[in-house]
Amino acid sequence: MTEAQAARQAMREGRWTGPTVHKVEGYVQANLVVLPRSDAYDFLVYCQRNAKACPVIEVTDPGDPQPRICAPGADLRTDLARYAIYRSGAKAGEAGEILDLWTPQSVAFLLGSSLSFDAALSRAGVEANDTVWAFLTSVPTIPAGKFHGNLVVTMRLMSPEQAITATQLTTRYIHTHGSPVHVGNPGVIGVDLGAPIFGAPLASIPADKTAVFWACGVTPQQAAITSGQELMITHAPGHGFITDLRSDRFCIP
Amino acid sequence: MTEAQAARQAMREGRWTGPTVHKVEGYVQANLVVLPRSDAYDFLVYCQRNAKACPVIEVTDPGDPQPRICAPGADLRTDLARYAIYRSGAKAGEAGEILDLWTPQSVAFLLGSSLSFDAALSRAGVEANDTVWAFLTSVPTIPAGKFHGNLVVTMRLMSPEQAITATQLTTRYIHTHGSPVHVGNPGVIGVDLGAPIFGAPLASIPADKTAVFWACGVTPQQAAITSGQELMITHAPGHGFITDLRSDRFCIP
Repeated sequence: MTEAQAARQAMREGRWTGPTVHKVEGYVQANLVVLPRSDAYDFLVYCQRNAKACPVIEVTDPGDPQPRICAPGADLRTDLARYAIYRSGAKAGEAGEILDLWTPQSVAFLLGSSLSFDAALSRAGVEANDTVWAFLTSVPTIPAGKFHGNLVVTMRLMSPEQAITATQLTTRYIHTHGSPVHVGNPGVIGVDLGAPIFGAPLASIPADKTAVFWACGVTPQQAAITSGQELMITHAPGHGFITDLRSDRFCIP
Repeated sequence: MTEAQAARQAMREGRWTGPTVHKVEGYVQANLVVLPRSDAYDFLVYCQRNAKACPVIEVTDPGDPQPRICAPGADLRTDLARYAIYRSGAKAGEAGEILDLWTPQSVAFLLGSSLSFDAALSRAGVEANDTVWAFLTSVPTIPAGKFHGNLVVTMRLMSPEQAITATQLTTRYIHTHGSPVHVGNPGVIGVDLGAPIFGAPLASIPADKTAVFWACGVTPQQAAITSGQELMITHAPGHGFITDLRSDRFCIP
């Protein structure tokens, strides 16, 4: 049994209930979005049109909880440690499994998470990953059907030299958000340092640091919320799905 | 007016009716597939599952013939030099425009073409592009709904050193098939050198050459044909759609 399979089994059996951040780092982690088939086309087109924020790793067949390509044998109803449930565009709770919410019309989308490239940055000596911020920008995504909203970004602070290394490295990780979408002045993309949606508020960027911004996997969830999506199930924040895909091989499949 | 816009206008006005191979090389060329909305979801999932063969650049909204992201102002019903029409999985003719076949349910898929990376190979001195073969392999694609079939590949012959350069370069062109899917022995992927679907039959690979294989954009058309797709409109072979995307910038968007 691989480390990825063991992790999923532990989650399935309720022995692993905590976050997956900096865990099982050799494997690609995915964000989960479950929607009814009736909304799946518009959502998939939305992901295609906003691929840096929504890099699709796999779409399951309606009703099939098994991600047959990236984790054969897994069950997306039980193999995440924690799920978030949204109703009519608002968070309605969390759960340890979603067996009762899954229907023959359920379609699961697995979207690459930046947790994979964080490990690559660490290996290259870019120690900017202990503190990651997330911000809503003023940059609109390209809508598809009812799905629309502004881009959400993560921000990491690093030296200018590290910013160049980070751009080089993450460029390869096309299924986990790829290269940065912005570097430097946060105001250019409408980021308010005082109002992060994740992380502590900042007064300004320290003079010896460069702010580097990547498209964030929260963007499609935000779009589903903005659209008032009737029912959407996702991973709980920080509780990703561990795929069988090797982070370093999956760079460009 | 850019060179890309001028090319599209010439096609729209019937002044350009020939192939686009080695033309307007600074711009990404796309393969066109038009399907009814009722088949669009399965086809888009098929493309996602087989992304190296089917790299989606844009999906238009149903009934909208304008590719608003990659070529604003263009009209996909008139701005290709030549179209192919398939009915019930068989070729039923060609046409210079498809105004009469376009309906409010028509969805256009634009898929990246390897014509973009051919120019990059030429610039790097890999002179293997004057002769390109296409073969059906024994490698099955991952099905989605009714769409299924085997992978189609292009083959280029080059020196071993050039094969390495070609792998490095094309890796960057992720929206135009990216890195090779195979190198060396054609038999490993079921390629019969004596029976190409494009190019002249070969007895064997010359001893000083390495065969390098890329996923081919004919694969999704082949899948639609295999599925007996009722109506499908595509570009005619060698007559691509010229987008506004710059080949060298679009490598990893």
